[in-house]
Amino acid sequence: MRDVAVVGVGMTKFGEIWEKSFRDLYVEAALAAIDDAGVDRLDSMHIGCMTSGLFVGQEHVGSLMADYLGQKNLAASRVESACASGGLAFRQAFIEVASGMSDIVMAGGVEKMTDIGSDGATYALAAAADQEYEVFHGATFPGLYALMAVAHMEKYGTTREMLSAVSVKNHHNGAMNPFAQYPFEVTKEQVESSVMVASPLRILDCSPITDGGAAVILTTVDIAKKLGKPIIKVIGSGHATDMIALHSRDDITTIKATMVAAEQAFKMAGKTIKDIDFAEVHDCFTIAEIIVMESLGLYEPGKAGEAVLKGETGLEGSFPINTSGGLKSKGHPVGATGVAQMVEVVKQLRGEAENGRQLKNNPKTALTQNMGGSGGSTLVHILEVA
Amino acid sequence: MRDVAVVGVGMTKFGEIWEKSFRDLYVEAALAAIDDAGVDRLDSMHIGCMTSGLFVGQEHVGSLMADYLGQKNLAASRVESACASGGLAFRQAFIEVASGMSDIVMAGGVEKMTDIGSDGATYALAAAADQEYEVFHGATFPGLYALMAVAHMEKYGTTREMLSAVSVKNHHNGAMNPFAQYPFEVTKEQVESSVMVASPLRILDCSPITDGGAAVILTTVDIAKKLGKPIIKVIGSGHATDMIALHSRDDITTIKATMVAAEQAFKMAGKTIKDIDFAEVHDCFTIAEIIVMESLGLYEPGKAGEAVLKGETGLEGSFPINTSGGLKSKGHPVGATGVAQMVEVVKQLRGEAENGRQLKNNPKTALTQNMGGSGGSTLVHILEVA
Repeated sequence: MRDVAVVGVGMTKFGEIWEKSFRDLYVEAALAAIDDAGVDRLDSMHIGCMTSGLFVGQEHVGSLMADYLGQKNLAASRVESACASGGLAFRQAFIEVASGMSDIVMAGGVEKMTDIGSDGATYALAAAADQEYEVFHGATFPGLYALMAVAHMEKYGTTREMLSAVSVKNHHNGAMNPFAQYPFEVTKEQVESSVMVASPLRILDCSPITDGGAAVILTTVDIAKKLGKPIIKVIGSGHATDMIALHSRDDITTIKATMVAAEQAFKMAGKTIKDIDFAEVHDCFTIAEIIVMESLGLYEPGKAGEAVLKGETGLEGSFPINTSGGLKSKGHPVGATGVAQMVEVVKQLRGEAENGRQLKNNPKTALTQNMGGSGGSTLVHILEVA
Repeated sequence: MRDVAVVGVGMTKFGEIWEKSFRDLYVEAALAAIDDAGVDRLDSMHIGCMTSGLFVGQEHVGSLMADYLGQKNLAASRVESACASGGLAFRQAFIEVASGMSDIVMAGGVEKMTDIGSDGATYALAAAADQEYEVFHGATFPGLYALMAVAHMEKYGTTREMLSAVSVKNHHNGAMNPFAQYPFEVTKEQVESSVMVASPLRILDCSPITDGGAAVILTTVDIAKKLGKPIIKVIGSGHATDMIALHSRDDITTIKATMVAAEQAFKMAGKTIKDIDFAEVHDCFTIAEIIVMESLGLYEPGKAGEAVLKGETGLEGSFPINTSGGLKSKGHPVGATGVAQMVEVVKQLRGEAENGRQLKNNPKTALTQNMGGSGGSTLVHILEVA
């Protein structure tokens, strides 16, 4: 397999973007990534999108987006793994470049979630769970993650304060991200007095409904050198699923798909979690960030919450997480999220993160973790400055 | 890139299958392919599915199907390119094996279309067209293909009889396929007196709404040899898109995405259309088969209809097309169709086609052409007996 590098990144502002359509969002992000990379062609394109069918009544996303991007006849694919669709698009693009099939490949992601209204969005998002065995019986995603939170609290003594600390940290970071949907600070008191969604999760424990697009460009290291861009190599990729329904899992206080995908990515990279400088992880709910930290092996089970409280995952901490603001503050257009994580880690690795959230000490190695549903799928990638 | 072979194929009976769910259909096809291949593991799985969100309210298809297939933690992806989703799943599996990332990969496809009723199915299928610029203004797929038929008739003198000949031939073949939805003969008179859908296309010019699943297993040629299976190599793969809306195309009497994808596949294979023995093509409507024959370069523009009338594409003809019965008789569960084409060509290349539809003269080289929407995307593959 050939060495692969990310040479361009772009994204739209995330938010409730009434004036831009599904296709507009993708094309805006894609053009930004092309500009950033300085490439004069694409050989192929993979687009992560969870459910444009339910959100905007549109499928055939590859054809639509190649058309509107002005890339007539481009080999363009749409991939789906619920909220991990963006990470999956990145992996497909990585494999395609590594294989020798194509030299310059875009991995993009997009979702237009707000046009359908909140009942429609709840129905559409529930399609990431087991429709017949969870959703028909009343489960929603806040409800499923609330079950995980209660189990984690019961087993390990994880506290309300620890959940709040995730939200406060991510909003602190997101306040410095010009692309974030909610670029403002929140306090512990605000989180803890916000409206209850599914106990113990309050609205400020939950990532929002978001419109947005993101795109990155992958190519061979040889071509990357010719483009004169910083060489950010993809050194590890992992992909795993788990039982789709939460009630079928062996243990709901860990995410097994994340454990397996991380193990694959570390093995490919020849690294361990100790070699990683920072990460973007899938904080769809505050409890998710805590469980994922443990499933990645960054902390022993039951120890992650305490670490967040101590500030270890803050911008100045020993292992910064979600410098972008995460899904919580930056927003969570489900198909775009995994690609937007790549946008952030590439900016950090290049030293280009905006408005004071750039990590000090020249970070060299980053990890992204993007998951679908209640952990039914996970993509993990490791990137390194060459 | 490594050499890749197809070592196992399986499919469900196609039809209106009330007693099996979305997940049942996929798992049945997948288990049949695993049995046929004799493999004891999968490294990865790509599932073509157009719009399970709109048909059955279920996304996160990779996680769901890995779970129900008993393949816990498998890297499982869903891909979508409207009615070409199955062909796209095959291409992704091919690239993944060729790259060296994985050794044994399933390419499957599934759609459960009949549960939603015909209005719902029409809405769901229309998501393959440009929702904003075609569907909102009243276009449906029979309508779009009717426009192509009228233009082809006007430009080349293509006749009603030529369209009928496609339907009669495909039903003749499908009558010998135990997996076909409509395994019976139709006469020219029946086609021409069947109910009008969108002039000039009648109901017997149209492929049906279908439930079904199909799966194939790809691996390296080295592993294929150890399995003791006939070596059916994948020697060419092409993938292209075109403007999604029919009104944006340069010429609606050809399918440009098919021309480009075929050119790529022929180039990779080092072959021309003259080296191919037979093909499965995307006859979603009778006119589509005629246009695709021309877009593949098998006949000059305007000459394909006459060839069908003369029987050149029949089982005993010089270039048999749709020996399976095609989408018309076998059925068209949109996400499964591209994979079901593979099932048929592998059976033919192995000499295993059932009930008298096996081609004589030991065919060695086959082509599949699977397209999305009104030709907004196409996958072309070339397989050869090693």
